[in-house]
Amino acid sequence: MSAPVRLGLVGAGRIGRIHAGSVTQIPDVELVAVADSDEAAAASVAGESGARAVSVDELLADSALRGVLIATPTEFHAAQIGQAANAGKVIFCEKPIALDMQVARCCVFEAARSEVPLMIGFNRRFDPSFRRLREAIDGGRIGDVELVQITSRDPAPPPLSYIERSGGLFRDMAIHDFDMLRFLIGEEIVEVAAMGTAAIDPAIGNAGDVDTATVMLRSSGGRLALVSNSRRACYGYDQRIEVHGSGGMVSAGNPVATTVELAGREGFMTDPLGHFFMERYADAYRQEIETFCAVVRGEEVDYPDGWDGLAALAVADAATESLATGRMVAVSDVSGP
Amino acid sequence: MSAPVRLGLVGAGRIGRIHAGSVTQIPDVELVAVADSDEAAAASVAGESGARAVSVDELLADSALRGVLIATPTEFHAAQIGQAANAGKVIFCEKPIALDMQVARCCVFEAARSEVPLMIGFNRRFDPSFRRLREAIDGGRIGDVELVQITSRDPAPPPLSYIERSGGLFRDMAIHDFDMLRFLIGEEIVEVAAMGTAAIDPAIGNAGDVDTATVMLRSSGGRLALVSNSRRACYGYDQRIEVHGSGGMVSAGNPVATTVELAGREGFMTDPLGHFFMERYADAYRQEIETFCAVVRGEEVDYPDGWDGLAALAVADAATESLATGRMVAVSDVSGP
Amino acid sequence: MSAPVRLGLVGAGRIGRIHAGSVTQIPDVELVAVADSDEAAAASVAGESGARAVSVDELLADSALRGVLIATPTEFHAAQIGQAANAGKVIFCEKPIALDMQVARCCVFEAARSEVPLMIGFNRRFDPSFRRLREAIDGGRIGDVELVQITSRDPAPPPLSYIERSGGLFRDMAIHDFDMLRFLIGEEIVEVAAMGTAAIDPAIGNAGDVDTATVMLRSSGGRLALVSNSRRACYGYDQRIEVHGSGGMVSAGNPVATTVELAGREGFMTDPLGHFFMERYADAYRQEIETFCAVVRGEEVDYPDGWDGLAALAVADAATESLATGRMVAVSDVSGP
Amino acid sequence: MSAPVRLGLVGAGRIGRIHAGSVTQIPDVELVAVADSDEAAAASVAGESGARAVSVDELLADSALRGVLIATPTEFHAAQIGQAANAGKVIFCEKPIALDMQVARCCVFEAARSEVPLMIGFNRRFDPSFRRLREAIDGGRIGDVELVQITSRDPAPPPLSYIERSGGLFRDMAIHDFDMLRFLIGEEIVEVAAMGTAAIDPAIGNAGDVDTATVMLRSSGGRLALVSNSRRACYGYDQRIEVHGSGGMVSAGNPVATTVELAGREGFMTDPLGHFFMERYADAYRQEIETFCAVVRGEEVDYPDGWDGLAALAVADAATESLATGRMVAVSDVSGP
Repeated sequence: MSAPVRLGLVGAGRIGRIHAGSVTQIPDVELVAVADSDEAAAASVAGESGARAVSVDELLADSALRGVLIATPTEFHAAQIGQAANAGKVIFCEKPIALDMQVARCCVFEAARSEVPLMIGFNRRFDPSFRRLREAIDGGRIGDVELVQITSRDPAPPPLSYIERSGGLFRDMAIHDFDMLRFLIGEEIVEVAAMGTAAIDPAIGNAGDVDTATVMLRSSGGRLALVSNSRRACYGYDQRIEVHGSGGMVSAGNPVATTVELAGREGFMTDPLGHFFMERYADAYRQEIETFCAVVRGEEVDYPDGWDGLAALAVADAATESLATGRMVAVSDVSGP
Repeated sequence: MSAPVRLGLVGAGRIGRIHAGSVTQIPDVELVAVADSDEAAAASVAGESGARAVSVDELLADSALRGVLIATPTEFHAAQIGQAANAGKVIFCEKPIALDMQVARCCVFEAARSEVPLMIGFNRRFDPSFRRLREAIDGGRIGDVELVQITSRDPAPPPLSYIERSGGLFRDMAIHDFDMLRFLIGEEIVEVAAMGTAAIDPAIGNAGDVDTATVMLRSSGGRLALVSNSRRACYGYDQRIEVHGSGGMVSAGNPVATTVELAGREGFMTDPLGHFFMERYADAYRQEIETFCAVVRGEEVDYPDGWDGLAALAVADAATESLATGRMVAVSDVSGP
Repeated sequence: MSAPVRLGLVGAGRIGRIHAGSVTQIPDVELVAVADSDEAAAASVAGESGARAVSVDELLADSALRGVLIATPTEFHAAQIGQAANAGKVIFCEKPIALDMQVARCCVFEAARSEVPLMIGFNRRFDPSFRRLREAIDGGRIGDVELVQITSRDPAPPPLSYIERSGGLFRDMAIHDFDMLRFLIGEEIVEVAAMGTAAIDPAIGNAGDVDTATVMLRSSGGRLALVSNSRRACYGYDQRIEVHGSGGMVSAGNPVATTVELAGREGFMTDPLGHFFMERYADAYRQEIETFCAVVRGEEVDYPDGWDGLAALAVADAATESLATGRMVAVSDVSGP
Repeated sequence: MSAPVRLGLVGAGRIGRIHAGSVTQIPDVELVAVADSDEAAAASVAGESGARAVSVDELLADSALRGVLIATPTEFHAAQIGQAANAGKVIFCEKPIALDMQVARCCVFEAARSEVPLMIGFNRRFDPSFRRLREAIDGGRIGDVELVQITSRDPAPPPLSYIERSGGLFRDMAIHDFDMLRFLIGEEIVEVAAMGTAAIDPAIGNAGDVDTATVMLRSSGGRLALVSNSRRACYGYDQRIEVHGSGGMVSAGNPVATTVELAGREGFMTDPLGHFFMERYADAYRQEIETFCAVVRGEEVDYPDGWDGLAALAVADAATESLATGRMVAVSDVSGP
């Protein structure tokens, strides 16, 4: 039996706590240290996981620690990726790598130069239903892919303070869908058109962002895709994909918490959807961290890496540009040389 | 092109009107005469169908008329079948043939002696979904049938006056399910156990009947079946079947009027079921009359005949006996020699 | 009782035959004359409907005939609308009015000048499920509409000869979706972006058309919409709509021919979708013609008129322009003054 | 914070292993000892749980251990319940308590005399969907319960050696459904009729058991129920319930592993059901053990106790008797004084 994988966590907020929880469920993996500028948060998460609360420097200086999970706000990713790469740690970083493409590129290059794997937190790739979509596509079950439709709606908008620092809906939210699209069809996105509106809250519009958006995309192989996003769905977290091919269609819908159906005079009623990503992607988050552990162990596994992070960000940049200019945008025009 | 099939209708009530409507939709078939003791009803149905309102005697004396649809209350079936058989007409008669097995037998024998086909109105055999169930079974899609479950619930009880003359829930309502069972598995029912209660309306209990019932059955080949019946389902007319076999299951559910789904804070809501048999079995009623027309023309078609009517009645009698005595009942014990 | 509505049919092809069939099912309406340059086709449809096969001139000269159904290929619509308007007939014309916006406008003006109602064959407005969508929206069941997604896929491409004369996928096929969008949200479309590809058959591409397309639209009120189209869906005619609003979502899916489900080792299998529009929209076609009869009778009913035809065509023109230029297109830029 | 609950496990087979796994997932609970006559099995389960492998006597002698999970074959339950009761441990015992009613009664009395809680392993009571059924019923969502239908099918029969010692299908398998029925309607079952057959494997019939069965039941309040059981369902573990009441119906179906649907020429295909109880009731098993921990802590919680075990066994005895005699059986006739 191999020695346990020892991990550190930087960032003890909502998503950091989810990752810490995943680690405790995986055999032969230990969370040994947690760092956060909010020391109480770090102590709380550390306490639940049997880890120590430390500073980022201490965490990275611990030579027993082979991998680090970066779950801080996006603005800290670049510096922490650089530091972790220099310390020779295998890195898991939440999406997006950075809001600025040049900065994100530097991160990826730095990890490459340090020869440490950099995995990006595109958790949806690990959802059992979405994985099955890709298996069906790769297995030729629907022939050549022609058109993909992704619906992705949050239950309710985040606080305005979050939105203001988020880089906008496309970099913060739709980036998951752009990555999913690349994951499913195995091609790059070359052209993007986006429309958007602040239909839910004018304050979001005043902050320069939209809360409701549609994106139309074309891949290098000429496949088409539609993405629809909203920051609000009162019936719950709505995450659906359908993929049309020359030989059929494969789709994945929303899982339900119970199979209870109530029939009455008004009709048949089933449950609303689960509230949000913590419930919906619970399995996916655990699989994601299991995969990261395999990366740390040096196993050959498929995972979203820094180049995937850059590619999705480039699509998000193109969508942002399209929204701002009212023009269709070639991804190569925004992603630069 | 063959000459049109000319039909007469005896009984211009609810179900007679449905059959008249079906006739008008079938090419090369004409409803030429309608008889009912309620002359206004006869005139109304005749008017809508381009037929004449006549007496039963006149109707049966019309030599141009080759087939007759008997849609009167059950108590008149026997005499009218006899009369129609003597007149050499091909006969369609609503279920049940009669409430009394001896009387029903006489009807069947009389039709046989007169060498006229007698078709019984087991309309559900013509429902597209239920036909597909039988095709799946006959095509070996589920292997050997082991267990059948039939759910059959009316939206609301009929008037007490109807119930009092109905012969009881098993002869009036469950008889459809007993016929369906025979239709699907192609075997006779040999043993029956029934339970029942007047859960909806004590007046139904006072009238000696039940409004909620369960029946357990065994076929000659040892296959098992469950039937559940109720005179009430506030969410609409509920008609479902599932058939389990050694190699799988095939089921048929309830069709819906629209595919509209409304998602809100409380969950996902779809339509209640269609109100009653007129909507649910509209297609089946038309197919049934088309089949009768084929019988009239002398074509080789599969249809529920008098023997089917007797067999289903025998099962209903056994269920009635089981309910009354609290014992499991062999169908041979009630159906006599 | 009012005198029966007498109608004439110009065009005895596939869709003409459907309309003739609908007329025979509606009480108090008669199809009296059928015209088609293919006299055998006219005679065949006339024969089935109890009508006479005549020339277009004869048909329009018949003063007993109050309404005319124009179901000829699009290139004949303009002349026949003009002729029928001059003859004072109430006009039903299949979509699109014409492939050229100026021509289409002339048709609408001509009908207006003759003061005859002109109804356009947007049959989907009469689909029971889609009507219920609009009722739900109008009834405030989902709050303010924010985003609409329409999926519309044919089972298989039409012959190349048809495509070559069709005006392209957007004017021929997506025009239904553009009309549906206007019908549901009650607003005009102001901006369009389209992508497309000839994924099914390169010959379609060589003919200058696409067979797979996506359209993104914005309405005058800032609502967003996505339309996805394909000329092929091997699982059947796929027609779905979902409408997201501030207070929920309402959707309509595909009806099924039977409710049969087969469960086996591989999973649960249900029927493919109905083959094509004749089955799917059978009810809608009949309701459409019933509505036209009401228009003929002078009743106050809601129907898609010439302006609706122009508006949908303008959106199709904008989509065509967007596809050709790779730019987002303002509808006002193509629809002219 | 309270001291951790320390538990011992007797029986390290399939179900013992599941319970051990549940314990490790519950905070503040420790599995400290595992006993099994198969010492290797005990050691294996103990190793995975951080517990010691010990003898039953050692386990019960450990005064730090407050509760014991009995997961041995049924024939050992009685002796171990007695021993554990004498040792003053809070007891969780798998169903059935014993195959013989007198023995089972002794167990319950012994626990009562020792004043230790005895919880019986009716895991399905803890399934989230089934709990919601009861909440809906208790909350008056469907009015008065009139009829319950339970479908319960295993994917494949157990080994013949298991069946021979199982007490028969009703005591081994249907007993879960009988308990569920009592759980849902809150009434005792008073009358039972059963039919059964060895349709899957004649060897099961030769062993005196059936593999396919139907049971019809009546409760003290006159409510009716149908249970259908099979030892085989090639499409997976099939566990469904529907409850009909005066004001509606509430049902719970089968959860699915993924929401993937594949549409092709043949139709729409979804996943088969999860393989068996370990997957289907994973949540329920964990909730069950959490509830037992609450019982150990002395909290006021609702749990299936010894009397529930006896009541379900009495229904199973009555069904067994009905099957053997071909008569409807009053539960009071078999359960004795």
